[in-house]
Amino acid sequence: MTKIEKIVLSYSGGLDTSIILKWLQETYGCEVVTFTADLGQGEELEPARAKAEMAGVKDIRIVDLREEFVRDFVFPMLRANALYEGQYLLGSSIARPLIAKHLVGIAREVGADAVAHGATGKGNDQIRFELAVNALDPSIRVIAPWRQWNIRSRMQLLQYAEKHHIPVPSDKRGEAPFSIDANLLHTSTEGKILENPAEVAPDHVYQRTVDPVDAPDTPEIITIVFESGDPVSVNGKAMTPAALLTELNRLGGRHGIGRLDLVENRFIGMKSRGIYETPGGTILLAAHRGIESITLDRAAAHLKDEIMPRYAELIYNGFWFAPERDMLQALIDHSQDFVSGEVTLRLYKGSASVLSRASPCSLYSADLVTFEESTIAFDHHDAEGFIRLNGLRLKSWAARNGR
Amino acid sequence: MTKIEKIVLSYSGGLDTSIILKWLQETYGCEVVTFTADLGQGEELEPARAKAEMAGVKDIRIVDLREEFVRDFVFPMLRANALYEGQYLLGSSIARPLIAKHLVGIAREVGADAVAHGATGKGNDQIRFELAVNALDPSIRVIAPWRQWNIRSRMQLLQYAEKHHIPVPSDKRGEAPFSIDANLLHTSTEGKILENPAEVAPDHVYQRTVDPVDAPDTPEIITIVFESGDPVSVNGKAMTPAALLTELNRLGGRHGIGRLDLVENRFIGMKSRGIYETPGGTILLAAHRGIESITLDRAAAHLKDEIMPRYAELIYNGFWFAPERDMLQALIDHSQDFVSGEVTLRLYKGSASVLSRASPCSLYSADLVTFEESTIAFDHHDAEGFIRLNGLRLKSWAARNGR
Amino acid sequence: MTKIEKIVLSYSGGLDTSIILKWLQETYGCEVVTFTADLGQGEELEPARAKAEMAGVKDIRIVDLREEFVRDFVFPMLRANALYEGQYLLGSSIARPLIAKHLVGIAREVGADAVAHGATGKGNDQIRFELAVNALDPSIRVIAPWRQWNIRSRMQLLQYAEKHHIPVPSDKRGEAPFSIDANLLHTSTEGKILENPAEVAPDHVYQRTVDPVDAPDTPEIITIVFESGDPVSVNGKAMTPAALLTELNRLGGRHGIGRLDLVENRFIGMKSRGIYETPGGTILLAAHRGIESITLDRAAAHLKDEIMPRYAELIYNGFWFAPERDMLQALIDHSQDFVSGEVTLRLYKGSASVLSRASPCSLYSADLVTFEESTIAFDHHDAEGFIRLNGLRLKSWAARNGR
Amino acid sequence: MTKIEKIVLSYSGGLDTSIILKWLQETYGCEVVTFTADLGQGEELEPARAKAEMAGVKDIRIVDLREEFVRDFVFPMLRANALYEGQYLLGSSIARPLIAKHLVGIAREVGADAVAHGATGKGNDQIRFELAVNALDPSIRVIAPWRQWNIRSRMQLLQYAEKHHIPVPSDKRGEAPFSIDANLLHTSTEGKILENPAEVAPDHVYQRTVDPVDAPDTPEIITIVFESGDPVSVNGKAMTPAALLTELNRLGGRHGIGRLDLVENRFIGMKSRGIYETPGGTILLAAHRGIESITLDRAAAHLKDEIMPRYAELIYNGFWFAPERDMLQALIDHSQDFVSGEVTLRLYKGSASVLSRASPCSLYSADLVTFEESTIAFDHHDAEGFIRLNGLRLKSWAARNGR
Repeated sequence: MTKIEKIVLSYSGGLDTSIILKWLQETYGCEVVTFTADLGQGEELEPARAKAEMAGVKDIRIVDLREEFVRDFVFPMLRANALYEGQYLLGSSIARPLIAKHLVGIAREVGADAVAHGATGKGNDQIRFELAVNALDPSIRVIAPWRQWNIRSRMQLLQYAEKHHIPVPSDKRGEAPFSIDANLLHTSTEGKILENPAEVAPDHVYQRTVDPVDAPDTPEIITIVFESGDPVSVNGKAMTPAALLTELNRLGGRHGIGRLDLVENRFIGMKSRGIYETPGGTILLAAHRGIESITLDRAAAHLKDEIMPRYAELIYNGFWFAPERDMLQALIDHSQDFVSGEVTLRLYKGSASVLSRASPCSLYSADLVTFEESTIAFDHHDAEGFIRLNGLRLKSWAARNGR
Repeated sequence: MTKIEKIVLSYSGGLDTSIILKWLQETYGCEVVTFTADLGQGEELEPARAKAEMAGVKDIRIVDLREEFVRDFVFPMLRANALYEGQYLLGSSIARPLIAKHLVGIAREVGADAVAHGATGKGNDQIRFELAVNALDPSIRVIAPWRQWNIRSRMQLLQYAEKHHIPVPSDKRGEAPFSIDANLLHTSTEGKILENPAEVAPDHVYQRTVDPVDAPDTPEIITIVFESGDPVSVNGKAMTPAALLTELNRLGGRHGIGRLDLVENRFIGMKSRGIYETPGGTILLAAHRGIESITLDRAAAHLKDEIMPRYAELIYNGFWFAPERDMLQALIDHSQDFVSGEVTLRLYKGSASVLSRASPCSLYSADLVTFEESTIAFDHHDAEGFIRLNGLRLKSWAARNGR
Repeated sequence: MTKIEKIVLSYSGGLDTSIILKWLQETYGCEVVTFTADLGQGEELEPARAKAEMAGVKDIRIVDLREEFVRDFVFPMLRANALYEGQYLLGSSIARPLIAKHLVGIAREVGADAVAHGATGKGNDQIRFELAVNALDPSIRVIAPWRQWNIRSRMQLLQYAEKHHIPVPSDKRGEAPFSIDANLLHTSTEGKILENPAEVAPDHVYQRTVDPVDAPDTPEIITIVFESGDPVSVNGKAMTPAALLTELNRLGGRHGIGRLDLVENRFIGMKSRGIYETPGGTILLAAHRGIESITLDRAAAHLKDEIMPRYAELIYNGFWFAPERDMLQALIDHSQDFVSGEVTLRLYKGSASVLSRASPCSLYSADLVTFEESTIAFDHHDAEGFIRLNGLRLKSWAARNGR
Repeated sequence: MTKIEKIVLSYSGGLDTSIILKWLQETYGCEVVTFTADLGQGEELEPARAKAEMAGVKDIRIVDLREEFVRDFVFPMLRANALYEGQYLLGSSIARPLIAKHLVGIAREVGADAVAHGATGKGNDQIRFELAVNALDPSIRVIAPWRQWNIRSRMQLLQYAEKHHIPVPSDKRGEAPFSIDANLLHTSTEGKILENPAEVAPDHVYQRTVDPVDAPDTPEIITIVFESGDPVSVNGKAMTPAALLTELNRLGGRHGIGRLDLVENRFIGMKSRGIYETPGGTILLAAHRGIESITLDRAAAHLKDEIMPRYAELIYNGFWFAPERDMLQALIDHSQDFVSGEVTLRLYKGSASVLSRASPCSLYSADLVTFEESTIAFDHHDAEGFIRLNGLRLKSWAARNGR
């Protein structure tokens, strides 16, 4: 294998990636460029710069990706009403390909021949990073220190840090922390007591949403306007994608919306238990289904529902940049032209409920459906023929079976 | 077309089917047998007997189908986690084939050559009744008075009743009521103001669940035990299927769980808006997914998720007794042998949330997934190979595309 | 229902549509515009003009649609490798939406408020015409004389013709003919002796292909070049879509390729038996799969294969212009950008077999796959990890089951 | 990793597995039990016994698995009409799980803690063996010498043989042979010149079928009877599964039926080119589709077609013993009860064509479908209603789009 000349590292500034930074410099003896992305995780990024400088990094990239994240990744996924295993809004899964895209972009720009990430060897994120890099630039190698070094426990990690004079924050010295991932779409929490799925998650694992018990006792009514499948305003105020999701996170968070305690199946073959908080995303899913309910043709809607589990699985498994995800996205996007209108929702104690929906592109016809006399001629004999011919094969089948 | 000799009518004792009873007797000049089923709709059935007697019916059948309904229809459907259009628990759809089954059974017993129902010509229920009859006994004819007579408005219906001395309850004289369907699984409400999907549903349309705002301020913790895919006890108490669903309806109803305001797509080609209340069913869906999450293999779970929309569509459209539903049920049931264990849920203000799950058949392995050092050897190099070979085709693809 | 002012009739010039023309003129007392399309059915169209003139038609449209047919209907469908019920190349199904499109176009141009067709009441074609018209212009009514008039047998039809002085060709006077449909893609034959699926089809029902027994004793080798999913040249000669299909029909026909004797399921609920001859289409399907085999990514190919039966069913059932077909087409087309290259086939005695394929866009790598030592490093340990992690869930599952 | 005490080796008696036998004995220093299965590959198995004895093997198992192979593996797969990538009849894929099942069975019987196979590190077979073992007994280890040893070329292999006094047949000394796999269902050939998909395969790679050019000039008519989805007799003669497939191989082989030249996608991420000969299987697929065409309900047939690609992929990828294959098999088998009757086929110059089919369980009704007057009342107004309601959503959709 050829020598590595330059590496771009996905760098948070935290303890783990600081150790990785050091380890890369030592192991490969080459320049490491750090890349720190603002995905709305709610952390200051400038400390990452300071730490990278202290570690001797010359090329430090800190980029605000919030708008790109929501516009090009979260919204397209929401158009599909994507839920992994019927419940999970894919908050971590959808962020990884974006980071990979920028790692590859910077690598090409600076002439790096490898990128590195801090995902561990049992998780999904390593796959998502690496498949995305494979699909974006097959010439770039991926370094995954957690799979390559000999550090196999938290204790060994701290020992490595001390040996290499990497400051260990006091709160990281004691017991291992939860494993947390956060961005504009969600916060996930795994590990420790959560590793027993029979144990109730303690309340302090939730960070972004209040317990519904502590949410306001009065419901809040909000409106969301969609244009061609994507939300564009909240409560009458037009917003950019990231601003809109931020606002819905604020609203959802204070009403305790979007909590999920889930045992899921990792691509790598094991089950894991996580706590997810997706306040704004949960509201958007309800609202998007609401506006689709009056603007989408039945067969279009059912086709979307049928391919959705596959689509969600692809994203979960790391195949965002794969051709099959592209193909499914083309199918989904093709259905969204008329998915425009306004949805009114009630937020209350953990729930986001659609109250009403209206659209200039509505396919709903009160005249057609009414129990009362209507102006549209609906010939009841049509129903008779419809049922008879739908039943024809069943009658043949039943008659045969009974012979 | 040959003369009809005897008809079995699905008879509720309400105004509509009382008029239908009269109309059948007049139109066909033959004996009409009435069949009234207790599906847990929460109405007294004996008044139906009295009314049928008054109408001269000699063979009056009143049957308690609650256990059969839950055991043979609701539970098999719940094994699939069936949701129509992502949201609707199919409470009306699943009751129709059961009624049709008994109509056919009685028809065969008494030598009737036709069955009749009171479903209207724009709805789904007519299809569900008739396709079920077709599939169960193709020799039996179905009479659908709403499609055959000339009554086309509520006013004409009342006039017919008066002319034929059918008593019209005073509360039915004024404005048309909502169209309501109820059974042990759900209550649905349609019509009137609900026909405008942009109007917020008034609170009085809800009949079975309290407004979450009025639900207890204290969460309630419950446990449900499953055996091979079906729930068998609540809070440690073993119950029959119907008793169990009744108890969960009580619990869910008081916590405002299972309300849904939906615009859905009817098989017959139009959109309609309904209010659904499915308190126990909503709890069961969450609980069933919870116990599946630790007992079902990943690919089995994903396969179930992928076929679910089709399965739900079949039930919605009336194909319960069709061969393709049988085939899908065989697939689903084949996955449930080990879906056993206990789920703990929190009921609060409209939500049923899984708190924990435990099973002697669990596939979850804390040892395998832990972030800590584990006793199970998980070779990180395996992950490397796994990712590399999953990425191999993507690298070929990307290299080609870039050529 | 409002009065019909002007009708556009799909008119072949044959006996049936000549009678329909008369019947429309008599029944509706309005102008009828005739539309006769050249879809490559291999008949002179000018006689249709003469007959229409004799029937008093003032506005006679005769249009050559062969290129549009192949380019915009046949080729997009072939991109999907569409086969109905695993075998049928959809030659009739794909022609109907094109005719409907032009009927609607002419109706709009001339201000007609209805279109009419000669499809019978038990077949698929009526559905295909009418759903296409519904989807293209919901304001235009469709008249289907075969469902509306009282003619219910061949004898009555001839009587009507005689009564109205419509000339009946002598060969139409005797026994009823086979029901035949032909266009550039295929010839289908139904009826008469074929209505018994246990009877072997007599050789004279085949019209477009020789019996393989009579085909040349020497194989013929041909090449087809594809660009982005569509064939563009045969044996090195670039051709327009219709010219290319015509040439492949010639080649396939003389080698007895593309015969199919099938019992299929009609949308309308019954089974029917047909003889299909699709010489060029059969060659193209083999060739298209051949070029896809080296240029399409695995997951893209498998996704296409999984949605294909649904796509074919939609076309068969008449939903070409429905949103769900559009969505599936978007998915399919999204995969075809690199489906370019040359396929060599052997035509012999009823078979078209791929001999070799080559492409500048090939994803095939001899270096990767070779049994010999290769220049590409394929690490066998990768396979080990790949298998181990694919097997991990199976081991958990088996261990649990055995507990 | 714990010491291996006893190994069961899948042993053909050929050069490769003879070398593997030696290598296992040397490397693990433990007893190796050999297992040689007769799957109808057409080779004498007694030489394998002699070689194993010479190699010092004490426990030599030679078992005739032909009936089990066809009855429990080939026929269940044929019920699904399984074709991988639209074309391949899965002849190799379906044999591996059977061998794995017996390896595991013997391992348990003799107390072995590992099984070994001779599949290489780039192919599909290693996966199929190992996933099957994982799913059957997760406690048994799998040894794959081709991934573990340092032999990386044919030359090194021969050197190892000579060094260890393993006789090398003279025909194996020269150029590397094709890689061949054979059993009752098929013969596959890969490697050498075939590694260039643009090269036409030379005729001598075919071993089991004549070139259609050399096949008889006279067609041969045969009949096959099916009972509940499986073939039970040929030309009126009842046969066991293996005897029946043997007979169809004879018939198909002499008519040049079942040749396939395919570039396929391996699970492991690369494309490979193979020549397949599946004479009897090709006839059976045509015949099974033929009998299904008159005995299977439309929706059942379409559901089968839709899940087939997934089912075939699972078998190809090695998931025969996985829960999802079981589930799909349950669905498929559930459809086959009435798939009984007789199919007549014509074999000629490479093609097996269905000529006629008849069944006491037929769903075909000539009366229903006829163009002539029929005794069954088919009301043409039913078709009108059927089409109108199928078109209703399209009209709403088109009207909306045009607004």
